Amino acid sequence: GSFSAAPAQDPMWGYFTAIAGQDGEVDAEELQRCLTQTGISGSYTPFSLETCRIMIALLDRDYTGKMGFNEFKELFGVLNGWKQNFMMVDRDHSGTVEPYEMSQSIANMGYRVSPRVLDAIVKRYSRSGKIYFDDYVACCVKLKALTDHFRRRDTMQQGMVNFQYDDFILCTISL
Amino acid sequence: GSFSAAPAQDPMWGYFTAIAGQDGEVDAEELQRCLTQTGISGSYTPFSLETCRIMIALLDRDYTGKMGFNEFKELFGVLNGWKQNFMMVDRDHSGTVEPYEMSQSIANMGYRVSPRVLDAIVKRYSRSGKIYFDDYVACCVKLKALTDHFRRRDTMQQGMVNFQYDDFILCTISL
Ligand SMILES: [Ca+2]
Ligand SMILES: [Ca+2]
Ligand SMILES: [Ca+2]
Repeated sequence: GSFSAAPAQDPMWGYFTAIAGQDGEVDAEELQRCLTQTGISGSYTPFSLETCRIMIALLDRDYTGKMGFNEFKELFGVLNGWKQNFMMVDRDHSGTVEPYEMSQSIANMGYRVSPRVLDAIVKRYSRSGKIYFDDYVACCVKLKALTDHFRRRDTMQQGMVNFQYDDFILCTISL
Repeated sequence: GSFSAAPAQDPMWGYFTAIAGQDGEVDAEELQRCLTQTGISGSYTPFSLETCRIMIALLDRDYTGKMGFNEFKELFGVLNGWKQNFMMVDRDHSGTVEPYEMSQSIANMGYRVSPRVLDAIVKRYSRSGKIYFDDYVACCVKLKALTDHFRRRDTMQQGMVNFQYDDFILCTISL
């Protein structure tokens, strides 16, 4: 990630270095331990390794498979946003989002998708007709990462991108 | 899926209907139970629910989130192919494929990807520097599904596809 203010001044720096270990970067397994310890999932089930892997893929713009300090802080920011969104949509505090609530939730995040995509999302990320927090976040990560990749290439903002095969695989295989 | 020969004549039909249950189609949780029972992963760890979900996404061309009988049979075909490929590449029978062996394995399957993509694959699908069978299959599913989506749109075989945003999300969000 890019270099910003002296990280030693940052209250999260000590925490980051403890998690990152020798190599100074956080991989998926380290991230899973860390997210479990911080209790960011609250009373929800801790994040699966799979979800942690795609969280890294979301921010890992140089494809190293690990996160530096700035990416780490950025992740906490987006994660907290998604958690608040989840709690807002889960009005009955069941710990799950119902399929019909998912449409509102995705619109809240600023994405415009067709009913067909919405339907595919609900089928893919629900278990027994309910969407749990871990899967909700997995879905948010993918939507954000895919949309970011698309927008970065859609420089004319035409809603259309010309992908070469290798580039298409590169920006989707890790998600 | 499309209709072919009378399924009642097929030795796998009774097996399929038992797994599919009331709705006559196989969802990710039913698939996971079934793959564990059939022992197709052999001495390898059984497939994760996540891998089962993307297996369904691979063949689920009408985006119902479930598999019919023909898709079910097709899956067993590709799965057996990947298993043989895995065993062939894992020469020392350690139950894992080493990163440097992954290049050969992907070439064996007929994909041509850049070193950059190969590197991203190894980082994403390995644990502590080794690729286990479940992750290997997850990678094969994604590569096949993404390549199939791409080729279906690359009608002129130019190695280039023009994606609209919604279509791009539709064919990647479930994988
Ligand atoms: Ca580390
Ligand atoms: Ca069923
Ligand atoms: Ca080996």
